[in-house]
Amino acid sequence: MKRTQISLLAVATLLAAPALAEDAALREEAKGLFEVIPMQAPQLADNNTVTRDKIDLGAMLFFDPRMSKSGVFSCQSCHNVGLGGVDGLETSIGHGWQKGPRNAPTALNAVFNVAQFWDGRAPDLAAQAKGPVQAGVEMNNTPENLVATVQSMPGYVEAFAKAFPGQKDPISFDNFALAVEAFEATLITPNSKFDQWLMGADGAMSADEKAGLKLFIDTGCAACHNGINIGGNGYYPFGVVEKPGAEVLPAGDKGRFAVTATADDEYVFRAGPLRNIALTAPYFHSGKVWDLREAVSVMANSQLGATLDDTQVDQITAFLGTLTGEQPEVVHPILPVRSAQTPRPEHMN
Amino acid sequence: MKRTQISLLAVATLLAAPALAEDAALREEAKGLFEVIPMQAPQLADNNTVTRDKIDLGAMLFFDPRMSKSGVFSCQSCHNVGLGGVDGLETSIGHGWQKGPRNAPTALNAVFNVAQFWDGRAPDLAAQAKGPVQAGVEMNNTPENLVATVQSMPGYVEAFAKAFPGQKDPISFDNFALAVEAFEATLITPNSKFDQWLMGADGAMSADEKAGLKLFIDTGCAACHNGINIGGNGYYPFGVVEKPGAEVLPAGDKGRFAVTATADDEYVFRAGPLRNIALTAPYFHSGKVWDLREAVSVMANSQLGATLDDTQVDQITAFLGTLTGEQPEVVHPILPVRSAQTPRPEHMN
Repeated sequence: MKRTQISLLAVATLLAAPALAEDAALREEAKGLFEVIPMQAPQLADNNTVTRDKIDLGAMLFFDPRMSKSGVFSCQSCHNVGLGGVDGLETSIGHGWQKGPRNAPTALNAVFNVAQFWDGRAPDLAAQAKGPVQAGVEMNNTPENLVATVQSMPGYVEAFAKAFPGQKDPISFDNFALAVEAFEATLITPNSKFDQWLMGADGAMSADEKAGLKLFIDTGCAACHNGINIGGNGYYPFGVVEKPGAEVLPAGDKGRFAVTATADDEYVFRAGPLRNIALTAPYFHSGKVWDLREAVSVMANSQLGATLDDTQVDQITAFLGTLTGEQPEVVHPILPVRSAQTPRPEHMN
Repeated sequence: MKRTQISLLAVATLLAAPALAEDAALREEAKGLFEVIPMQAPQLADNNTVTRDKIDLGAMLFFDPRMSKSGVFSCQSCHNVGLGGVDGLETSIGHGWQKGPRNAPTALNAVFNVAQFWDGRAPDLAAQAKGPVQAGVEMNNTPENLVATVQSMPGYVEAFAKAFPGQKDPISFDNFALAVEAFEATLITPNSKFDQWLMGADGAMSADEKAGLKLFIDTGCAACHNGINIGGNGYYPFGVVEKPGAEVLPAGDKGRFAVTATADDEYVFRAGPLRNIALTAPYFHSGKVWDLREAVSVMANSQLGATLDDTQVDQITAFLGTLTGEQPEVVHPILPVRSAQTPRPEHMN
């Protein structure tokens, strides 16, 4: 009986050998292109020291709708930690029911992006955090009103003092942004099937998913979508080979051109980071494509001039599904109680 | 040395004796009027069996903005577990930036109210949960669209099957409401200073707070604000003795009259539950009073014809502060991923 088992195992090993060799080669190639999401939040340049107190403060600020002028919207409204770090809308709804210009990018793993926003106009998450709170179509607040709001609540006064020890005036718009950044840097999603496979767990990806990875590399997707976030680390024109239709690529949004005022940057956007992409429909900066398969086809066509057959689209989509990692477990913070000095919410203007 | 200590202790005991006797009498009186919030969620009539699976499903539904037509608002939007179970607005902002007619009541300890809404038109939290999702000025959804949304997501299909085992069609609007109710019943805030004192911890309340409690009883507040939620268990006209100004009591909102069509019920509202009242400004159904001290004065004047001096108002306000309990610790749920069949958010109508 024991001998039979051994010989069956030997046969199975023999049959599996070519597949394993292919796997090993694919893994080596993938390791040259991609990186694994770490289990712990990374160090942050220009945000020292990140303490538990700073992260906790950041969580409060991230979840606090009183950071908006109306008292209705928080960072969490558009970067919902329960929805893959997005809001699931084409473009976000903000102050006065205005519709924002671009699809909300995910906050998950955003710390690993080269820069923030679709056009990369913020170099880091701290700079990013200052944008939406001031944007008229989003939270419509001012730094002054935000600081006054925080300053008015003893709970925040204490939390800022703990998060920024030794500072004479710990409450500032800059420190607001640093605390939010410290919290957001914890919103990482390790242990995706892809990462497990990349680290050596052969069974973590199915044959179709691995075929999709191979196609993702061979078709050219990985030329832009690489690195730790499988994207999010470089700028590329949308429509390299063929411009998608005006609905998907509205003529009025020239992307990074607004940041650099360089003709070459017309319709240039940061390559979308593809971590957890299966959770973050709708797609593209316009949010006009709801189906991930369709998004894959549009990309292949417009960026690479490739026409994929249904099986290829399915396989790449299956691969993209392996990029869903463990979602962050966040205890909803208890927010400081307002005081008589706290500015009241204003929704009329 | 030891003898000196003993005799000092004896003197201290002697001096404290009258105060302790007063405390004991006040506690006995208070025990006849109020009840302690339990550590565990209570049993729910008509919602058997409440399992962890049902509570977890309820948490997902409570936090899911896709339960609204626009994809913008969830139960959590107006009953924020980090803000004392309210939104901190005069009246809530809903679909299309519409302003709701009444201040959002807290979801915390709501399970202990005799009925839900300011006018008590829903007998329990399950019935309540069906209201805002359908209200045009709130989530503006339909039961059909909500059920279709839930049905479209495999994550919800599985969660409903687990929460309602053995049912042929576990996904229904009724079961949506039962799951939300099961979750909301966990949002209780035990161990307030008042409850600790009521259970015998003499040091849990200060002298001012106890004086406030005594005034709260003796002035007549406890005639309506009693029971486990210090209110929330009966209906009373707003302005028994003197109608407050039109801003605080707008003429157009006749309260429970809309439920019963009985002339006696004009301007009748459920007595506000006062648990965590220090966290839930602004006050009254109109949300027009931001200062708890002012709310105390308005109530004393309009309901009891009493004019309180500043010290009395301070003491009652101090007592109300002891009603803040341990806030619920809620892990933000990870929400099911949408599918191609999931109805898309609509914000335009």
